[in-house]
Amino acid sequence: MTRPTIAALAADLAAGRTTSRALVEQALARIEDPAGEGARTFIKVYRQQALAAADASDAMRKAGLVPSPLAGLPVSIKNLCDVAGETTLSGSKALADAPPAAADAPVVARLRAAGAVIVGSTNMSEFAFSGVGYNPHYGTPGNPADRTRVPGGSSSGAAVSVADGMAVAALGTDTGGSVRIPSAVCGLVGFKPTARRVPIDGVVPLSTSLDSIGPLASSVACCAVVDAVFAAQPIAVPEPARLDALSFAVPRHYVMSDLDATVSAAFSRALTVLAAAGVRIVEIDLFMLDELPAINAKGGFAASEAYAWHKDLIARHEALYDPIIAPRIKRGAQMSAADYIELLGRRADLQRRVSAVTADFDAVVMPTCPIVAPRIADIGDPDGFTRNNLLLLRNCTVGNFLDRCAVSIPCQRPDELPVGFMVMGETMSDRRTLSIGRAVEAVLRAG
Amino acid sequence: MTRPTIAALAADLAAGRTTSRALVEQALARIEDPAGEGARTFIKVYRQQALAAADASDAMRKAGLVPSPLAGLPVSIKNLCDVAGETTLSGSKALADAPPAAADAPVVARLRAAGAVIVGSTNMSEFAFSGVGYNPHYGTPGNPADRTRVPGGSSSGAAVSVADGMAVAALGTDTGGSVRIPSAVCGLVGFKPTARRVPIDGVVPLSTSLDSIGPLASSVACCAVVDAVFAAQPIAVPEPARLDALSFAVPRHYVMSDLDATVSAAFSRALTVLAAAGVRIVEIDLFMLDELPAINAKGGFAASEAYAWHKDLIARHEALYDPIIAPRIKRGAQMSAADYIELLGRRADLQRRVSAVTADFDAVVMPTCPIVAPRIADIGDPDGFTRNNLLLLRNCTVGNFLDRCAVSIPCQRPDELPVGFMVMGETMSDRRTLSIGRAVEAVLRAG
Repeated sequence: MTRPTIAALAADLAAGRTTSRALVEQALARIEDPAGEGARTFIKVYRQQALAAADASDAMRKAGLVPSPLAGLPVSIKNLCDVAGETTLSGSKALADAPPAAADAPVVARLRAAGAVIVGSTNMSEFAFSGVGYNPHYGTPGNPADRTRVPGGSSSGAAVSVADGMAVAALGTDTGGSVRIPSAVCGLVGFKPTARRVPIDGVVPLSTSLDSIGPLASSVACCAVVDAVFAAQPIAVPEPARLDALSFAVPRHYVMSDLDATVSAAFSRALTVLAAAGVRIVEIDLFMLDELPAINAKGGFAASEAYAWHKDLIARHEALYDPIIAPRIKRGAQMSAADYIELLGRRADLQRRVSAVTADFDAVVMPTCPIVAPRIADIGDPDGFTRNNLLLLRNCTVGNFLDRCAVSIPCQRPDELPVGFMVMGETMSDRRTLSIGRAVEAVLRAG
Repeated sequence: MTRPTIAALAADLAAGRTTSRALVEQALARIEDPAGEGARTFIKVYRQQALAAADASDAMRKAGLVPSPLAGLPVSIKNLCDVAGETTLSGSKALADAPPAAADAPVVARLRAAGAVIVGSTNMSEFAFSGVGYNPHYGTPGNPADRTRVPGGSSSGAAVSVADGMAVAALGTDTGGSVRIPSAVCGLVGFKPTARRVPIDGVVPLSTSLDSIGPLASSVACCAVVDAVFAAQPIAVPEPARLDALSFAVPRHYVMSDLDATVSAAFSRALTVLAAAGVRIVEIDLFMLDELPAINAKGGFAASEAYAWHKDLIARHEALYDPIIAPRIKRGAQMSAADYIELLGRRADLQRRVSAVTADFDAVVMPTCPIVAPRIADIGDPDGFTRNNLLLLRNCTVGNFLDRCAVSIPCQRPDELPVGFMVMGETMSDRRTLSIGRAVEAVLRAG
């Protein structure tokens, strides 16, 4: 299935070949189709507001007012963003009695200001605290490539909303891969920006040190447009980089172990076609990544920062939590202030040491996830959940811990389950990484 | 005793009325005078290096090379700064077996590059963790106004080195008042910059969230010169602000309780003369400062961050620590990661709320310390130490917690023990605060 890009739809709207009303009605019809995944993909649908916004967008366009390429296009947001007047649930039942948000989160306000039509808020792993995409309260949307498989998480509904044509692009959050994992295993492009570029105010935090907000969409160019809106930067799609000027580093360690056959074959093929297109591919030693499990042995930033935010809520409502998620958060209670302060120091130290090795390369590349989407049946027991969750998160968390940006690009053949090819850039090299991502995407689609 | 300013000495050197050699020899003679406080004021004296640097400075001056107004002037540094080839002790015996520093701390290197002659490293509260200035390992230098009293701390030797003419200016560090407290109770000017302006690399940390590096000297203008060197900014002394354009806020709460009679009278007089000179003085409510003891009830940033740094050293060498300091550091072991993360949030919250009240004023003013220097006899027992330490630190810590800058200026009469008048500016308003400080200083000296 070829999904329309933001640029193509913006051109159709500009030429009068379609209207925002038509696009939004089509998206709502897919969401509401009882044979589809809509009921498990969205936690809230803003039907009335979306249609009003679509009509307003069409009227403004007639008057020559088109604020951005997103104007009039259906977009989904993740259920952890504040929307004025709505209670923010974050995929949980534990916040049901929280007061409604007084204002839109800045990222939501920026989407609206860009003219995007927000069709609803998407399902997610409870409190964004797993990479599988399973949710016991609101159901688990089926993977678009195989409905018996998980969609990946935590931005599970975000990915399915785009893959199934319920939105042109989706807002996701990425603390340990929650944008890139569902993008990879659902066959989309996902971009995790350097965290500081996009404000996280008005978004239920998982880990304030690691949380970032990024888009899931059909192409790198689509992600570049939405990222510019999120970051309040001028909207420009970077030109594809010259492949014959690029050098990519492939770490031999940590991120290349335990690959399944599909991922291993797809990633190798991708390296071959990129090399044939002129990219210099260099295998590098990055032994220090092997330190990550020990650095995060006590739960890392996610457990400690989540516990700081959740402890009062857990005291009141623990029974309402996903029984898999609550214990993961409560691990944070075991961490001391000294552990946390040491973690800050070890993070800065690892950032320095890794950058010293990778600085001469244009990007570090690796499979986004070492495995394809697990079957829903295989994550039902806690052991299966934990094993698959750790594998799905493993490679992506490197980028969060190092405070970098990264884009995941599909690299599977049409007959294969989706596999993501991840291009990780340096901290704050976001637009350059998108430029490289566009060049990589062009080769992988052609190959 | 009137102490020469940096500007006056620089003029004398420029006119050939004295030499760096003469100034440094005079400083060394005072340090080495067995009747003086030198033995308790300095932990290390760099006699040979200082004389070599003085001669080199004189030779360079003859050739027209004068890098800054500090060129050729004797300056002291605090014993927690790395000096290439020396073991950094931080006022303790516990680091005696540490390897020597490979390089000067950046602030030390900046002093040398400005031509300052570093005569030695000064005594301090062990690991900078108290405001009294007592040190059981290296002695407690007597207060220049009354040798039976403490010099204040933690930059105790820094203050006495300047007050007793062993240095023209001193490098101090201020985590909870450690520059301003000894300046106030010894009759000097002390400036605590906004922490981020001066690099703390190569300086033994007390609390990485709160540590700042600032000068102690004879005047606000002297402090402005040294601060510019520390911050690697162009050396310029801000002109005094126009008093009849200024509004000062005096908080009614927290910082104005438990003043002793000397401080109360001197501070009131200062407000009266400032008002007479045209400053609008407005008493304000700042109830939220009363939250500080509860916010820091578990030891705050200082205990948790100090514990994270010290825990291995305490495990090896606890017996070598000051028995008053080790338990203060070990309190940090009780803090959880969630406590620490909550502390970060409460700090940001308090900063916002206080700034909302104080934003319309040019400065917030208060007594630097609520009491004059305690007698050495009164801090010998743990209760007396703790009571006096908390009082000495109380007002200054407000500035560290709020991440602001502040200058302490003498406001006592010649027949009174020294009292500091503190002018606290907003975060990063450092040069403006020094400009206001110069105007205040002129009125207080005249009054």
